[in-house]
Formats: sequence, C-alpha cells, structure tokens
Amino acid sequence: MLEAALTYARDHRDRHLTLLIDLLRMPSVSTLPEHRPDIERAAGWLAEHLRTIGLSRVQVIPTDGHPIVFGEWLGAGPQARTLLAYGHYDVQPADPVGEWHTSPFEPTIQGENLFCRGASDDKGQLMAVVAAAEAYLETGRRLPINLKIVLEGEEEVLGPNLAELVRRRRDLLAADAVLICDEAMADRETPQILYGVRGNLYLELEVRGPAHDLHSGTYGGAVDNPFNALVHLLAQLHDPVSRRVTVPGFYDRVRPLSEAERALLAQVPATDEVTCHLTGAPALAGEVGYTTTERASVRPTFDIHGMPGGFTSKGHKTVIPARAAAKFSMRLVPDQDPREIAGLVESYLRSVAPPTVNLIIHNLGMALPAVIDYQAPAIQAMAGAFVRVFGKPPVYMRSGGSLPIVREFQDQLGVPVVLTGFGLPDDSAHAPNEKLHLPTFYRGIETLIHYYALLASRG
Amino acid sequence: MLEAALTYARDHRDRHLTLLIDLLRMPSVSTLPEHRPDIERAAGWLAEHLRTIGLSRVQVIPTDGHPIVFGEWLGAGPQARTLLAYGHYDVQPADPVGEWHTSPFEPTIQGENLFCRGASDDKGQLMAVVAAAEAYLETGRRLPINLKIVLEGEEEVLGPNLAELVRRRRDLLAADAVLICDEAMADRETPQILYGVRGNLYLELEVRGPAHDLHSGTYGGAVDNPFNALVHLLAQLHDPVSRRVTVPGFYDRVRPLSEAERALLAQVPATDEVTCHLTGAPALAGEVGYTTTERASVRPTFDIHGMPGGFTSKGHKTVIPARAAAKFSMRLVPDQDPREIAGLVESYLRSVAPPTVNLIIHNLGMALPAVIDYQAPAIQAMAGAFVRVFGKPPVYMRSGGSLPIVREFQDQLGVPVVLTGFGLPDDSAHAPNEKLHLPTFYRGIETLIHYYALLASRG
Repeated sequence: MLEAALTYARDHRDRHLTLLIDLLRMPSVSTLPEHRPDIERAAGWLAEHLRTIGLSRVQVIPTDGHPIVFGEWLGAGPQARTLLAYGHYDVQPADPVGEWHTSPFEPTIQGENLFCRGASDDKGQLMAVVAAAEAYLETGRRLPINLKIVLEGEEEVLGPNLAELVRRRRDLLAADAVLICDEAMADRETPQILYGVRGNLYLELEVRGPAHDLHSGTYGGAVDNPFNALVHLLAQLHDPVSRRVTVPGFYDRVRPLSEAERALLAQVPATDEVTCHLTGAPALAGEVGYTTTERASVRPTFDIHGMPGGFTSKGHKTVIPARAAAKFSMRLVPDQDPREIAGLVESYLRSVAPPTVNLIIHNLGMALPAVIDYQAPAIQAMAGAFVRVFGKPPVYMRSGGSLPIVREFQDQLGVPVVLTGFGLPDDSAHAPNEKLHLPTFYRGIETLIHYYALLASRG
Repeated sequence: MLEAALTYARDHRDRHLTLLIDLLRMPSVSTLPEHRPDIERAAGWLAEHLRTIGLSRVQVIPTDGHPIVFGEWLGAGPQARTLLAYGHYDVQPADPVGEWHTSPFEPTIQGENLFCRGASDDKGQLMAVVAAAEAYLETGRRLPINLKIVLEGEEEVLGPNLAELVRRRRDLLAADAVLICDEAMADRETPQILYGVRGNLYLELEVRGPAHDLHSGTYGGAVDNPFNALVHLLAQLHDPVSRRVTVPGFYDRVRPLSEAERALLAQVPATDEVTCHLTGAPALAGEVGYTTTERASVRPTFDIHGMPGGFTSKGHKTVIPARAAAKFSMRLVPDQDPREIAGLVESYLRSVAPPTVNLIIHNLGMALPAVIDYQAPAIQAMAGAFVRVFGKPPVYMRSGGSLPIVREFQDQLGVPVVLTGFGLPDDSAHAPNEKLHLPTFYRGIETLIHYYALLASRG
C-alpha cells in the first residue's frame, strides 16, 4: 500500500505539477476586493478536485469573508487515527509588480523552480497534501488513516472565519492531530518542524495636524508637521541600539528562553552569512543578547511596513500634509496577548504625543502566539517520515510568522498541531519572485505518503 | 493720467476677471511632465496678451525647461525709471484632488472669492501687474515709467532657467528696481512688504536594506527594516522639544536676530489664535525662544513632505520593504548656503546611519535665502502706493517661502527688489481650494497704478 502510493506519486509528477499550475493561475489575493472572483474560482476548483480524488462531504462553506473548502475520507474506520490537514488557498498581493522577473500570476518554470505568487505559500504545499492522499486512493482505494482537509481563503488577511468554524463545527473538524503544511525547511536537505508561531498585532497610526495641507514656506516652523511628529512617535516605539520595543510592559509576559530551548534552536543550521546571502541585507540586526535564530522565532519584533500620506510622487512639493500615517506590526510571542499589547501601545503613544497633533490608531489585525509540545507522537511520526525521505531527522524551530489558527486548533480541538512544510528559505514568500523548488515539492509528497502510514501506526 | 488709469481699472473689472479666468483654465503644473502642453499654451496666451495691451519686443523665450515670457514698454524714455516686473505662470499640482470643493482647474466664483489652482499663486497677481499697465496704455497711451515684464514657468519647481537668463541677458532685463507680486498681505486691510525670503534645500533620503522585500514573519527581528532605520534617521535630524535642526553646524551661518528687527516683526498683526484658525492646527509649535512670526520668517525649518516605499494600500501586508524613502526640505535663512547645508546633512546622516542599511541622498532642489533693504526708495514708493489705496502703511516681514530669483535679481542686476502682493493668508496657496479674494485683486490693480506713478517721481 505504501510502496504503491510512492510509485504512483513518482509516476504522476507531471500531473501534480499541471494541477498546481492550474491553481496558481487564479490570482486569489485575499486582501484586495477586486480579486474576490478569483478567490471564489479557486475555492470551487479545489472542491471539485477533492471530489475527483475521492473525498466525501466536499463543500465550499460560505463565511462572512472568503469561503472555506472542506472534504474528508473516513474509510479507515472509527478505530483509526484521524488527521485534519490544513492549507490556505489565498495569497499575498503581487506588488511591487515591477520587481518580478516573470508575470506574478503566470506560473513559469525556470530550472528546478516554479515561479508564481502562491507557489510556496501555500498552494504548492496544500497540493502536496492532496497529492499524497490521491496516491493512496488511486492505488489502493484507501488511506491508512481518516483524513479531513480544510482549506481557508483568509490566512493572509488574518481573517476570523476559519477560527469561527473551528469553534462552531468541532463535530466536522474533530481529529487526533492537525497537520499544517505552510512552512519552509531549514535548507534543501534539512527538514524542519515548527513547535510554535509568533502572534501579531498590526496597527495603523494616523497623525492629524492642520485641517488641510499647508504651504511649508508660509507655515513651516510655526505649524507642526504630522510627518515630523509621526517619525518621532515611531522612533520612540523602538530603540535603535538595543533594538527592543520601548513600550512599557511590552515584555512583561514574554516567556524567558530556557537553556534547553536555546540548545534546541542552536541546532537550526541557519547562519548569519546564509541569511545575509538570502536577503541581500548589508548586515543583520536584531535584539541585543539573542542569536539570529532566536530573534526570528522566540523574540517579539517591530516592523514598519509603509507610511501613507503627503506627497510621494516625483518632483518636489513643499507641503505640510494635513495627515500622515504609518502601517506597522509587532510579532508577539507566548504569552503576549495582542489585545493587551494594543492597549499598551495606544496608551504609550498618547502619553508621548505632542499637543500639536491628534492621533487615531486603527487596529488592522491580531493573532495569538502559540507553543507546541514537539514530543507528541503525532509530531514524532512526522519526524520519522522526514528520516525516511531526507535521511535525517528534522530540526526543531519556532516559526517567526503568525498562524493564528494554530492556537485555535490547540484550544478548540485539544490535539497536537504538526506545523511543517516543504518551502525553502529562498522561496520569497510575500515578496517578488516567489517560487517553489520542484524537487522538494515531489519529496514533500513522498514524505506525506510516509506520514499518513506512520501516523496510522504510531500517532 | 493717474486718475484716468484708475477710472479705467474700476470700469474694466469684468474684463480683468474674464482674462484671469481664461489663464486659470490652463493647468500649467510645472512639476508634472503631462502638463507640458498646458505650460506652452499658457506662455503663448500671455505673450499674445502682452502684445494686445501694447508691449514691444514680446517673446516666448525657450529654455532647457519651461519657456519665459517677456515684453516691455520703454516709451518713458532713457531718463525715466525702469521697472522689471516679475511673475510666474506655473502652478502647484492640485493633489489631493479629493479635498477640493470645486474642480481645481475650473475657475469658480463663490461670494467674493475666485477658486482655482493658481488663482492667488501667482496668476491673479501677475494679471494685476499687467492690468495696471493696460490701464495707463489704454487711457493715455503711455506709462509714467519704462516697464519690463518677465514671467517664468518654473517657480514651483525651483527651475534654474530664469536665473540663467538673468545672468546671460542683463541687457534685456536691466532696470532700476524689480517688482515681485507673489505674496500675501498680512490681512485684508494690512498691506505687507517682504524684505527677505528663506532659501530651501529639498532632499530625498532613500534607505536600502535587503535586496528584495521580505516576509516580516520570517525575517522580522533579524534583518533591519529600512523604514525602522529611516524613522530613526529622520528623528535624529530634528529635536522634538527644542524643535531645532540637530545637524552639527546647521545654525553656524544664521544671522542673529537684532532687537530692532524683532520690534519690526512684532508689528505684523498675525496672532497665534488667527494662525490656528486659518490652519485648523490643534496647537502651534516651533523653535523655542521665537515668536510664531519669527519662526515662520527668519528662522530655518525642517519639514517632511512624504515617505514613499513599502505597502501603503488598504489592508495589511506584513512586509519588510527593500527600500524606504523620505522627501523633506529645510527652509534656510541668511547666510545659510543650501550647498553647504546639503553637505552637512549628508555627512551627519552617514555618521549616524547603522551598518545594516545603505543610504542614497538625492538633492531635489536648492534656493538661496535673501534679505533686502526695505528703506530703498523703490520700496518706499510701494509703501506710499499702499497708503493711498489701503489708508495705512504696510507692515514689514520676511517671507517664509523661497523665491530664489530674489537673490539672483539682487546679485545680477544690483537693484532693490520690491517683494509684495495681494494674496491673503487664507488663500490656500499650494493646498486644496486655493482662491483669490476679488476685492483685494481689484485694490491690487489700483495700488499698482499708484506705484507706477510714485516710482516715476520718487523711486
């Protein structure tokens, strides 16, 4: 059964690539309303595909936002293990479009890589999960486990609707373990299991000064400039030397890092040199007292994403703009709570703001951080699958990104979450020229075929 | 001769308004290449109009940038005084267009005001200069002085071409005094003569970090964020408490403010209350130790105009952008030199920048500051004209804006520059809903008719 499935997967790589390309062509950008039809189309396509490979109860579940695709195969019987496999079919926007070397939504193979927005995050990975199931169903008409697949369309916008479904439909989603394939390996030869995720708090700080734009010749020096005030406010949120967030109370709930965990994280093979090479950064930077791996995983962050307002075209307009804004986010770690942090940030900003401007603070999204016991059998079964395909056990890391659904699965279903994936660190997820390394995609399918078998016996 | 001209002006207000409306309809935005045809059209229209009222040697002088319109009437003879009257027919961009209550380039009369981009800055004012000349030429076929009119199309972009012409064609432009009508009165009843202008240095600071945009989950905390670095750099240029520029050496050449000049400036009727009302600012702000009038005229400034880069659309994209930029300018005062200040700013920024980013500093424009001896006869003649029309002498102020041509006229022609105007403080020059107060426009024409006569006898 296992061998037949593996052989099928190797013989049908072209089919799985073709299916992925079809899915990638749909620009299912969840944050842009104009792509709503593409979201609908991708959801419908996925439901049809799950039906085709033999899943039951397949449905496109409408929500207040983007729909959720569900399907299951429960033929292993009530005594067998049940795995809930999660993926997301929505993608990040393609901008800045000018920096792509290929058309962002025209899947293009160059060498071993497939370039397209969503190739790695997460369409390639969710299609690996489905392909592994197909390999069993096409060769032996059965899987070694019961499998439920749930695919959301709001991961990139921190949408609340899958969490809502998890809370409302525990009957539908109940399982013995959850698998989330939406992450990168440590490098091409080193698999990785993530035993946690950072949370997130995404704010927009708007500073309002004069009622309308003013001439900086007439009023410069006399009327406060909202951008001048804004840069001072932002500079006061983050210390440039310690590189710590300076909001009082911000670190109060951050769990101290144990020596055991430091030792575990030290096994992650990333080096500063490799990270500089991957990113092109002139030099790395981060919180004093922590390694690069720790800074990118178990420590909170502060990042400004963009600063709308004023005059940003070519040329020079000498204007004091009526308003200036900054979009910024903070990655949070256990046990920080984004709601509490939002309150701390707002109080602090209001306490340091000058009386010459007014502040408006918009909360654009929140996600809870999580940690997972990586020694749970369902997770160690995945470690075993990696050994079979990659010849070595995975490293254990905490994800620097935010997957709020991890915490929901933990809290609502009460089962271990296997957070892993077959992306690579140079996939440029969320950036121009996102790609999927195809040999790793195919190894991913085989790893999942092994995983379904190992979970049946050991999970 | 004087009375006939005044009567003509009063009888032809509708004609002068209609002509101004025709000129305003041409959106001669000098900073936007797509408006180049409108620039050409406005220049041609003005040349034709100068010919119509009886000027000689009228020409549209091509330059490397936008053309200069010239015309003269030298019938007063070589013994008479010659005035060079300056204006600019280019205008600021209309954005943010959404904040206009009328269409920005459709002149619209509401009550006593004419709304249109350029109505006050400077088309209304240059047309007053021309209308006053027309009043003499139509009624007595002669002016009491020789008059040269020069109209440039690059004032709003700090273009170099008029200065080039002044240097190259002193023969064409030679005069006994220069009149620049491009300023505002202190209020509706208080005329104002500006005895100086601030200089300007407009820079764009670009901060480059990683080679491409990165996912802030994967790299947040480990790779420096160009916007994080940029806000710290900007915050270090300007102290939020003293509100002084913190670049070493910045104030070294600033002339100390004498008690006599403080007393002169104290006569300017602007109050903080009125300025708050005009601007809608919650409270005024400025350099410690100076009055609002002083801060807006004789002291240098620092203003951020916009911060291009990163993600500024709706929604939330968790990106570490590859680059971030800030457009900012500093108004300069005698004897600061923008070239020297540019060097100081660049050295300082490079000395405080972290090694985790690279800086690129673009110089987008420079203008020299100037001071003028307001007791010169040609300036006191204008004071006399104001007394005749407004019933009181003007206040004396230094302009907070930058008119680099003031310094060029001083240095190249060696004559006094009469810098004044008939705008009002609430005209919203450079902002949405720019307007011209029509009763003041008509009083301006009469003041200029008096000025030409007084200059003949006293200037």
